[in-house]
Amino acid sequence: MMNKTLTTLQKKIHSDLKNIYNSGPTSLVETFNYVISGKGKRIRPILTLLTSKSLFGNYEKSYNAALAVEILHNFTLVHDDIMDNDSLRHGKKTVHEKWDIPTAILIGDAMLAKSINILSESKYSDKLIKSFNSALLSVCEGQALDKEFEIKQNVTEKEYFMMIEKKTSYLIAMSIELGALAYDYPLKDTKKLFNFGLCIGKAFQIQDDFLEIMSSSKIMKKSLNSDVLLGKKTYPIILCNKKDKNFIKKIIKKHKKAEQIISKIRKFIIDNDLDVKITNTVEKLYKEGISHIKKIDFKSNELLNFINKIKIREK
Amino acid sequence: MMNKTLTTLQKKIHSDLKNIYNSGPTSLVETFNYVISGKGKRIRPILTLLTSKSLFGNYEKSYNAALAVEILHNFTLVHDDIMDNDSLRHGKKTVHEKWDIPTAILIGDAMLAKSINILSESKYSDKLIKSFNSALLSVCEGQALDKEFEIKQNVTEKEYFMMIEKKTSYLIAMSIELGALAYDYPLKDTKKLFNFGLCIGKAFQIQDDFLEIMSSSKIMKKSLNSDVLLGKKTYPIILCNKKDKNFIKKIIKKHKKAEQIISKIRKFIIDNDLDVKITNTVEKLYKEGISHIKKIDFKSNELLNFINKIKIREK
Repeated sequence: MMNKTLTTLQKKIHSDLKNIYNSGPTSLVETFNYVISGKGKRIRPILTLLTSKSLFGNYEKSYNAALAVEILHNFTLVHDDIMDNDSLRHGKKTVHEKWDIPTAILIGDAMLAKSINILSESKYSDKLIKSFNSALLSVCEGQALDKEFEIKQNVTEKEYFMMIEKKTSYLIAMSIELGALAYDYPLKDTKKLFNFGLCIGKAFQIQDDFLEIMSSSKIMKKSLNSDVLLGKKTYPIILCNKKDKNFIKKIIKKHKKAEQIISKIRKFIIDNDLDVKITNTVEKLYKEGISHIKKIDFKSNELLNFINKIKIREK
Repeated sequence: MMNKTLTTLQKKIHSDLKNIYNSGPTSLVETFNYVISGKGKRIRPILTLLTSKSLFGNYEKSYNAALAVEILHNFTLVHDDIMDNDSLRHGKKTVHEKWDIPTAILIGDAMLAKSINILSESKYSDKLIKSFNSALLSVCEGQALDKEFEIKQNVTEKEYFMMIEKKTSYLIAMSIELGALAYDYPLKDTKKLFNFGLCIGKAFQIQDDFLEIMSSSKIMKKSLNSDVLLGKKTYPIILCNKKDKNFIKKIIKKHKKAEQIISKIRKFIIDNDLDVKITNTVEKLYKEGISHIKKIDFKSNELLNFINKIKIREK
């Protein structure tokens, strides 16, 4: 997925994250460094940096904010993994699996504190923190809806879009927003970038839902299938339910093995052209996103090229 | 413990906390309001308000910060209760006990977001958030040490003091500090108030440790005894270990029932005059605290009177 510039950026972020938390209680320092050593794609901080680069030709002023964004994202992963009882993340044991739940709760809290700490020492910290904190609350609310939907039978497409907007898109939009706010970019244009991010974020989440159900666990490097069995309302599942409200229930009852269940769902998706519908929805969201920023005066195309790489990703 | 003014203040805080989170995912709104309806003494927000009142004659400008402090404190309680596996808090079921661990993790995170949100809309938000966030990181580190000490045999008094400074005192000191910062009080004098708070906070924690082991569970309205069995290194336990490093180990091995164990520890404390040593340490810390603020020009005595009430409390 990555060309040379992006790989360099990933490595720089990766290496600088290692310098963030080196003195403190051993249990926190060790866990922090375990989490940030995960093989994440660093999409969110790269969005921050490339937004700055595309608008202002450099990213010096937003670099710390980008690190804060990546730490916030990892905080959400650590806590979500406990809540969803996931045992693998990027091919590595999750924190609560390697240590225990108390350790995972605490390192999440400390990561959040560290990320705000970084922002509070930046220029325009008040604007950065306001944006950052809105995203934090939004992520919590999105996760709450995601959990509520697990036990809710009929989740509509509209409800699903509201949930992923809060759970995923807001953080993506904020990552882009910080790349502009760190340079005191006009609020009106910053808002356009934010709305662009909301659309991209939704497209991104739907692609993730789709890839997760259509790919093998080998490609995704995480334990698959748990989402369906947990009752998670992903976009493909919602479309299956819309087509036949008893289908998922029936096949979960009929088949014992997760791999069989997924295989039946895949077939149902293809037989009913739901894959076409999903691909069209993603395409529409990317177009809608681009429409928000058509009047933005970019100096270069790094941000848009990167978005395009995300769009055509296969894992 | 409370006179009329304090009861009025408690009621006002209690009632205003109820207006903070009323629209959002049902699972979060419901849990938030359950947590903030607990019968807490509201010591921290009262410290913020009385600091302002004593310095400036009113507390209008620090009122929101006081609410944020109380929400932060409750966030730490919700997450700590999971980590310590506590089932009761102020006579009510803890969140993870009434709902489940995912709900308790998530409401904690959301409470934190809400508290920062309140601060970010205040005047001098940059200073307030910096102070607030330092306390947040400190609380996490203190909790990490507290957990590390559970499995550490020889915890020294010095290590204990470092742990409670981070876990308890920092938040108390920050509560006082915000009452000054919200009025843009000179930093040099604010620092004195902060150092006063650190001493008071340590005294407060030692008293809590002592009351917890010496009182019946009826007075404390929480399940007692779990701390000793968890291996928690409270001040009385550290002093027992210092007197006889095998004492605690022996009685835990010998006696099956928690109540018997506590009763033996109580006897050991009294027989060895450890209660006198504890009372003296508390007294010394209050005196040291007062010495930091002897040159502060207070308009009234509300803050010091309140500290005195905390000092002579019996639960």
